[in-house]
Amino acid sequence: MSEPTKFLLGEGDVPTHWVNLMAELPGEPLPPLSPRTGEPAGPEDLTPIFPLGLIQQEVSAESEIEIPEAVRDAYGLWRPTPLYRARRLERALDTPAHIFYKYEGTSPAGSHKPNTAIPQAYENAQAGIARLATETGAGQWGSALAFACSQFGLGCEVFMVGSSYDQKPYRRSMMETWGATVHRSPSDRTESGRAQAEHTTGSLGIAISEAVEVAAGDESCNYALGSVLNHVLLHQTVIGQEAMLQMELAGEEPDVVVACVGGGSNFGGIAFPFLRRVLAGDSQTRFVAAEPAACPTLTRGVYRYDYGDTAGLTPLMPMYTLGHDFVPPPVHAGGLRYHGDAPLLCGLVKAGAVEARAYRQNETFASAVQFARTEGIIPAPEPAHAIRAVVEEAEAAREAGEARTILFGLCGHGNFDMAAYDAYLAGRLEDPEFSEADMEAALARLPEAPAIA
Amino acid sequence: MSEPTKFLLGEGDVPTHWVNLMAELPGEPLPPLSPRTGEPAGPEDLTPIFPLGLIQQEVSAESEIEIPEAVRDAYGLWRPTPLYRARRLERALDTPAHIFYKYEGTSPAGSHKPNTAIPQAYENAQAGIARLATETGAGQWGSALAFACSQFGLGCEVFMVGSSYDQKPYRRSMMETWGATVHRSPSDRTESGRAQAEHTTGSLGIAISEAVEVAAGDESCNYALGSVLNHVLLHQTVIGQEAMLQMELAGEEPDVVVACVGGGSNFGGIAFPFLRRVLAGDSQTRFVAAEPAACPTLTRGVYRYDYGDTAGLTPLMPMYTLGHDFVPPPVHAGGLRYHGDAPLLCGLVKAGAVEARAYRQNETFASAVQFARTEGIIPAPEPAHAIRAVVEEAEAAREAGEARTILFGLCGHGNFDMAAYDAYLAGRLEDPEFSEADMEAALARLPEAPAIA
Repeated sequence: MSEPTKFLLGEGDVPTHWVNLMAELPGEPLPPLSPRTGEPAGPEDLTPIFPLGLIQQEVSAESEIEIPEAVRDAYGLWRPTPLYRARRLERALDTPAHIFYKYEGTSPAGSHKPNTAIPQAYENAQAGIARLATETGAGQWGSALAFACSQFGLGCEVFMVGSSYDQKPYRRSMMETWGATVHRSPSDRTESGRAQAEHTTGSLGIAISEAVEVAAGDESCNYALGSVLNHVLLHQTVIGQEAMLQMELAGEEPDVVVACVGGGSNFGGIAFPFLRRVLAGDSQTRFVAAEPAACPTLTRGVYRYDYGDTAGLTPLMPMYTLGHDFVPPPVHAGGLRYHGDAPLLCGLVKAGAVEARAYRQNETFASAVQFARTEGIIPAPEPAHAIRAVVEEAEAAREAGEARTILFGLCGHGNFDMAAYDAYLAGRLEDPEFSEADMEAALARLPEAPAIA
Repeated sequence: MSEPTKFLLGEGDVPTHWVNLMAELPGEPLPPLSPRTGEPAGPEDLTPIFPLGLIQQEVSAESEIEIPEAVRDAYGLWRPTPLYRARRLERALDTPAHIFYKYEGTSPAGSHKPNTAIPQAYENAQAGIARLATETGAGQWGSALAFACSQFGLGCEVFMVGSSYDQKPYRRSMMETWGATVHRSPSDRTESGRAQAEHTTGSLGIAISEAVEVAAGDESCNYALGSVLNHVLLHQTVIGQEAMLQMELAGEEPDVVVACVGGGSNFGGIAFPFLRRVLAGDSQTRFVAAEPAACPTLTRGVYRYDYGDTAGLTPLMPMYTLGHDFVPPPVHAGGLRYHGDAPLLCGLVKAGAVEARAYRQNETFASAVQFARTEGIIPAPEPAHAIRAVVEEAEAAREAGEARTILFGLCGHGNFDMAAYDAYLAGRLEDPEFSEADMEAALARLPEAPAIA
């Protein structure tokens, strides 16, 4: 090999701790508010559906939390994941920039989601829970949790949004192969489902309500969430910690770290370990969060308390929001179609520590195809947004004639997203954008809650 | 980590040479025969559709052939691939056996096929060829070649069997994403296609004829084949060479090496480097080739000269065959539905150096699901046959109460095969078997050719 392009770690390099960025942030974090009382929500608001181990992680003030041995062991099924230098993409872009990417598509489910599904399944198994219920839209999260439950002998019940259930039978088969039971939502299984029977295509909001209802009504069953919450972002920090070691192997320090944002767990996973160094004054790395122009939470949302779900069952969280009942246009990056974002990430954007950018579908897929034809891997539509931002950064470096080290998170492959590529290549991809009218309508429906300073 | 489960190599461990087992076999190899003259075919029979570099590899008597730097460089996009110890499967089987698997599903196309697509594209690019034509059934080979062509700036034209083209639009999108042009075969593009227009679902035989016709009629275009030929098996030996280093890291020597067989390239790839040691008297490793009961070439075919394709355009090759016009039942392991097998592998089976076993679909998928629920990875239906044989070996070790080290080739993931899992889990999977009547009919249609001693 003339020049190294792949930076691999050994099995012993699977991180031993998760990085809890919350502990590093100045001041007290804004508390979530109970949807019943409007008062700060406490651990007791969460115990009916989450095990104590995860609740402790959710509110922990420790800067590092030890990863249980059984979790590290299961991580070893696919971790450490590879980090690549994208030399072929660099040549195609004719840029002096060095582009690195951390690839999470080698997990059994094909994305970063198992990084949190595994510890969530583990903590529930430890707590004597027999079964987990969850919702899934495009199917990435449901697949990851089904896989994780198979590893810890837990049952898994997935409420899959009706339209996805019909359009993506293969995601359903994947979950069933790992032993999960998959319901088309709205289903007959729950009151929430039966009450919404007329909404035949379903929605993520309805599916969440069904899963929460099942978990709340059965002591042996808990609920699991794939993004947004502190403990989920915490679990994902294995990505950034490995990437940090691998960048050391490469002998470079990233000038900028780029990742896509849906609920924030992929972004937090790769960025937080690097951000900790910046907060400590040890580095000047920049951070770019890439989102779809059709669902521009960080770039155009308002910073307010809002519900995490459409139906208003979850605590109110301080975050950028497009309104909890906003239904984003059906862009192919299904994992980025969320009205809010992780409070932890939103606070960092608000403080100026993270820059957010929004991209349209066609420019995003143009960069994804260029990536596939140079680096080989066909990216999922979600990280294609990060690739678009990387191309901008690399072009800026070329125009400025300056060196620049770019690291981005390639959080999953596109094997289940080829219909999107098909539409792009056929020129059938639309470029929906969020409108002023959308924003006004959303603001009118925001819940009563204290303003954020 | 309590015990190692993953054996990783560095980028510098990508093999520098391919292993040419042909050079190690005693006696002269049986020559292929020209379909026109019935006399031994020479390199001149191949020059219209293959570049000289590949023809030299096809007939080489060197025991090792150096891998060009540009090929090693492209291999580095995903090689070395990981080798795992299947500790969770071992526990589920309650076996004293140690089970290892070499996983080729981390390549961009998701299988071992790019190992030969890359050097084939490279040699053609070196020879000044502008474009490659090929056929594809299920789409694995077409995807791999499309990816490889994108790496070396070659055009790529794929004739995809009509029924697959209709059923697997995502495989087509994948090839197009890498820049290939995909035709539904039979097509209007060729005389062979137009002559077969009434066979609307197409067949691999027709698709081969179309690709060969395009390549033969255009000096700037060559043909590429994804299995069977010596040079294809040669390229795949990177798998076994890496596995050998990784088994050394694990401190074990395989008692048995298991792989599935369609045309033989996956089997040859993992087995030949180990077989070379056996032929040299340095090891007593056994070898098991797993095939579908619906297309039992090695277990029930006759050892005779036969055509490589349905239409009889290719040279006659000495091999086990079910008859060149046998159309196997539509089992889901599309990559194993081939009437013959690589002459190199067939000779080894005939000589007793490799044991062949055939498995039915349902028992195969039962083992695949057990593997997915323990090891996480959902295997493609083809290597699921190898897993079935591994389970047998592991159970035999348990019954005998003896240690046994098993290594198998997991040549690809099942992300594009979930419909097959769906059918299995729903109890809708059939168990077709090859019949005596099938064999008699095939024997009656074998071409005139010298008998093999």
